[in-house]
Amino acid sequence: MTYNGCMKTATRAEYELYYWPGIQGRGEFVRLSLEEGGADYVDVARLPETEGGGVRAIMRLLGDEREMHPGFAPPVLKCGPYTIAHTANILQFLGPRLGLVSQDDVQRVFTHELELTVTDFAAEIHDVHHPIASSLYYEDQKTEALRRAGFFVKERVPKFLGYFERVLGRNSESEGEYLVGRERSYVDLSMFQVMSGLEYAFPNALARLHDKIPLLRALRTRIAARPRIAAYLASERRVPFNEHGLFRKYPELDVG
Amino acid sequence: MTYNGCMKTATRAEYELYYWPGIQGRGEFVRLSLEEGGADYVDVARLPETEGGGVRAIMRLLGDEREMHPGFAPPVLKCGPYTIAHTANILQFLGPRLGLVSQDDVQRVFTHELELTVTDFAAEIHDVHHPIASSLYYEDQKTEALRRAGFFVKERVPKFLGYFERVLGRNSESEGEYLVGRERSYVDLSMFQVMSGLEYAFPNALARLHDKIPLLRALRTRIAARPRIAAYLASERRVPFNEHGLFRKYPELDVG
Repeated sequence: MTYNGCMKTATRAEYELYYWPGIQGRGEFVRLSLEEGGADYVDVARLPETEGGGVRAIMRLLGDEREMHPGFAPPVLKCGPYTIAHTANILQFLGPRLGLVSQDDVQRVFTHELELTVTDFAAEIHDVHHPIASSLYYEDQKTEALRRAGFFVKERVPKFLGYFERVLGRNSESEGEYLVGRERSYVDLSMFQVMSGLEYAFPNALARLHDKIPLLRALRTRIAARPRIAAYLASERRVPFNEHGLFRKYPELDVG
Repeated sequence: MTYNGCMKTATRAEYELYYWPGIQGRGEFVRLSLEEGGADYVDVARLPETEGGGVRAIMRLLGDEREMHPGFAPPVLKCGPYTIAHTANILQFLGPRLGLVSQDDVQRVFTHELELTVTDFAAEIHDVHHPIASSLYYEDQKTEALRRAGFFVKERVPKFLGYFERVLGRNSESEGEYLVGRERSYVDLSMFQVMSGLEYAFPNALARLHDKIPLLRALRTRIAARPRIAAYLASERRVPFNEHGLFRKYPELDVG
């Protein structure tokens, strides 16, 4: 079985994204790739319930007992009869289809490796405001969050961003303009999202690293200026940052 | 560029694994696949320093400024001139080479998706004993760990194991014997490791779910009985569980 049957029909978009409609969250990494790749897609849960959208659409998908390959959690991508979940897995799947990854095998593996490191970083960013349990409100784990934030800002942000800056600096093929190879790939889009989210949620932490991450800052600007990304960011399809997502503006956690 | 040049020479094993020598940790998922696949490999950091081993070997690799594709953290796999990091990425790379994944594209993507969910679960398991910072001792974040453990045992363990049990139950191709397709794949080996680790670290939590996860329990037994895995587990190559790794026996966290 291959993905040959994964194509659009007269009545259905080629790709259907299932993700929480009110936040950027992890789904945003997928949205950015779909947008930059010019994909024919529907953000299903952002449709009205009367048109088959809303959170109900996600619940219906996750609860479908006939699904042989159920996803653990959103985001989930439907593509014809196929169901593909987990952000980095979806991006690896979309990369070659949307021209968002190198044709070179070795570079593809490294692009995915970097995306998995973005995934780990995103989980740590989430857990700064939710160090005890995802099921608890932030307010009910604020004491622990304050303690975790100190280590996150002092140790983890410099470690992750320092790593990605180093990877950019070593990529002679694009003279540090992109993370892998000569062209922008999906992980550059993901890195744009991380930088944007950090500026929203941790502006002080980011300002302190300003001089150490010139290539990352330039990458962010470069991606934001790409025509399809710029159009997306200016559209209503881009959900604004808010305090229900991955990146939350809680100034008390952005410890100087 | 492809991986064609990735083969053994007279003086060097085909695969070199770089991982902390004193723990199972995330490296154990890679070790299990190398063992089951009958790979020609060296667990570099477990060699004496006089033979180029020890933690120094890892530091040398991570600090190599000529490396175009540096890994963020161990485990790192060297294969000829190539460097591949991140557990799930390494397993995806090894799968087809060691006969540890289906030949079917759709099943390969799902196998990787499941492995990424194992990765997320492993991170949550780690953070039960390290909810504030990896750089702090457990004893210095024990209060927060105790609070996190309650939610982990009550909410997260049933959610993750319930999911994998469901995936097994839906796999009619192997009548629930394996997670994907007809044969064992690397994610079955990883699930064996998760079940073994949970029994070591959270025996009460696991016992409470006993009746709800018959297929997972049978999978664990089935994998442990495979000749190469059984030989590995009985050998000195298998580092015993201990309180420096991912799965730690802290009875106070195994809340009933």
